[in-house]
Amino acid sequence: MKNFKNIEHIVFGRGSFNTLDKILNPHRNNNDEFIFFVVDNYFKGKELENKIPSEKKDVIRFIDVDPYEPTTEQVDQLRDEVLKNYGLPAAIVGIGGGSIMDIAKAVALMFTNEGSSVLYQGLDLIKNPGVFHIGVPTISGTGAEVSMTAVLTGPEKKLGLKCDWTIFNQVILDPDLIATVPHDKWFYTGMDTYIHCIESENGIFNNALSHAYAEQSLKLCRNIYFGDGQTPENDDKLMIASMMGGLSLTYSEVGVCHALSYGLSKVFGTKHCFANCVIFQHLDDFYSEGVSEFKQMLNKQNIKLPVGLSKEWSDDQINTMSEIAYKLSHMWRHAFGEDWQKRLSIDKLKELYKRM
Amino acid sequence: MKNFKNIEHIVFGRGSFNTLDKILNPHRNNNDEFIFFVVDNYFKGKELENKIPSEKKDVIRFIDVDPYEPTTEQVDQLRDEVLKNYGLPAAIVGIGGGSIMDIAKAVALMFTNEGSSVLYQGLDLIKNPGVFHIGVPTISGTGAEVSMTAVLTGPEKKLGLKCDWTIFNQVILDPDLIATVPHDKWFYTGMDTYIHCIESENGIFNNALSHAYAEQSLKLCRNIYFGDGQTPENDDKLMIASMMGGLSLTYSEVGVCHALSYGLSKVFGTKHCFANCVIFQHLDDFYSEGVSEFKQMLNKQNIKLPVGLSKEWSDDQINTMSEIAYKLSHMWRHAFGEDWQKRLSIDKLKELYKRM
Repeated sequence: MKNFKNIEHIVFGRGSFNTLDKILNPHRNNNDEFIFFVVDNYFKGKELENKIPSEKKDVIRFIDVDPYEPTTEQVDQLRDEVLKNYGLPAAIVGIGGGSIMDIAKAVALMFTNEGSSVLYQGLDLIKNPGVFHIGVPTISGTGAEVSMTAVLTGPEKKLGLKCDWTIFNQVILDPDLIATVPHDKWFYTGMDTYIHCIESENGIFNNALSHAYAEQSLKLCRNIYFGDGQTPENDDKLMIASMMGGLSLTYSEVGVCHALSYGLSKVFGTKHCFANCVIFQHLDDFYSEGVSEFKQMLNKQNIKLPVGLSKEWSDDQINTMSEIAYKLSHMWRHAFGEDWQKRLSIDKLKELYKRM
Repeated sequence: MKNFKNIEHIVFGRGSFNTLDKILNPHRNNNDEFIFFVVDNYFKGKELENKIPSEKKDVIRFIDVDPYEPTTEQVDQLRDEVLKNYGLPAAIVGIGGGSIMDIAKAVALMFTNEGSSVLYQGLDLIKNPGVFHIGVPTISGTGAEVSMTAVLTGPEKKLGLKCDWTIFNQVILDPDLIATVPHDKWFYTGMDTYIHCIESENGIFNNALSHAYAEQSLKLCRNIYFGDGQTPENDDKLMIASMMGGLSLTYSEVGVCHALSYGLSKVFGTKHCFANCVIFQHLDDFYSEGVSEFKQMLNKQNIKLPVGLSKEWSDDQINTMSEIAYKLSHMWRHAFGEDWQKRLSIDKLKELYKRM
């Protein structure tokens, strides 16, 4: 029975980003006395950039997360560069979407754990607690702000650095920060939450705790995506839905869609939330009600997802994806039970990928 | 904007009490190397007593919480006695209902803060972090397992030791432990959660976060109290409802019923959850829907609450209660707004108490 670590502190509300300075102050004199900010490149030159409470010694890196999902190599380089030029940060602040959250969590751990992050992809492989790290989500849905994993794509696998120390010490949930998310991204990331809940609910690890969080998160998702869409009130709701969906999967597990999605992202670099949406539409035989509702939300929000992708894929690529997905045994165990290997084969996975 | 501290670790599930030993192990060598168990006297001689993972040096105190609500004097004495005879505990484990939770939280703080607990009744008056403390609820509803306050009745006031350090370092939520709660207590404590949510929702501090927790907690309460009552499945739900209701009031505030209830308990020693129920039935002009639904749950669960109590109360007693309640300005501000003093007078409070 797992003993779950919580985020240590949460502040929620419009304008809560302005409390970051006060939150950082007691930490400023730790280690080599500078704050390391990891910020989504989207905010370069935007209003938020001026609001970052950085001081003279602090280090800011703007990262373009659009070209690919966070990689082990990227995290290692970032750590090495900062360590060499500035030393050990007093604290790390990630300001961005799920990719930035994962980079901030992973870097925080890699500052205090030797060697490449590739060594630590898996459960409880990290040896030392990381640097104090703060998550400030500017896109909601991935649940990366609450989850105990920092998902990285490595040379061999897409898998998280997963342990108690991965979890943020502090999270700042300011709904103002997600107000300008483009409509399509807003949909894909919100649907990541929706899929988290559907998968968390449908499997052997679901329990009263994960269920209560999933139920409320799903209610919020329906309010938003069948309702008025991107409004300030719905931004509040989406931020909470993302958190609760993230907690639901933490207390339970994800399933079929996430396993397939990891394979797809590993081979084609497809962004996580978009990959989930592309896949989920084809999973009616596993999550019939969820998929049907998902399609209604697609319509309501005027989102068109690509189909027929697999026509362009080689057998090799489909094989590789299927093998990557098959290895995610914790997800399959949840979705299909202890005897999942009797119910799932590589061939079945190939068939699923060919539906895309 | 408040930065909320979370419980550090939570384990949930049937049989999770058995993980207590493993959880205690890394702490056993701290301070004077003994664990201090504070246990509801109800479990003396019961099966649970034998399951407590105590070792030779450990100290167990069974406390009868029926005669009165936890007092500052009781907490001071407990601290003084243990300090004098055994020293500073490595950890404190509270096993019981809301009263035991509050005693465990308060004692944990008083081991490391000099003088009487009376000095620390209020917000952020505690000067030093307490001893590592673990909460194991055996009755669900008060939310004391998650709240940032340890409510004590002192010579002057009933008020909590409220600060980040009050919050448990670890909570063990084992629904098996609440299976034998007597029907009336089960009702009163569950209704404490219900009232937390109704009050949290109705006031100026309500927000998307407190609302999401209240909404889900209320849904669970309805499931339980309009449903099959005390079943294993509902025990799971009640444990989650209590936690979520406690989080809702933490992120928002309680209101009219709790303010009146504090006065009643201070003067007559009435147990908190029962006091809330006795009062809430008369608050239709503040919480009309909530009170109406509450009365339906009373009927469904065949609970009869006393009425006409105030006939036996002296004017002095009613004055004292009204003055105590009036001082809880944070609750009135929440319920009535910043200008609450224009909307509430001591005379109005007397009128409310006379309804009882």
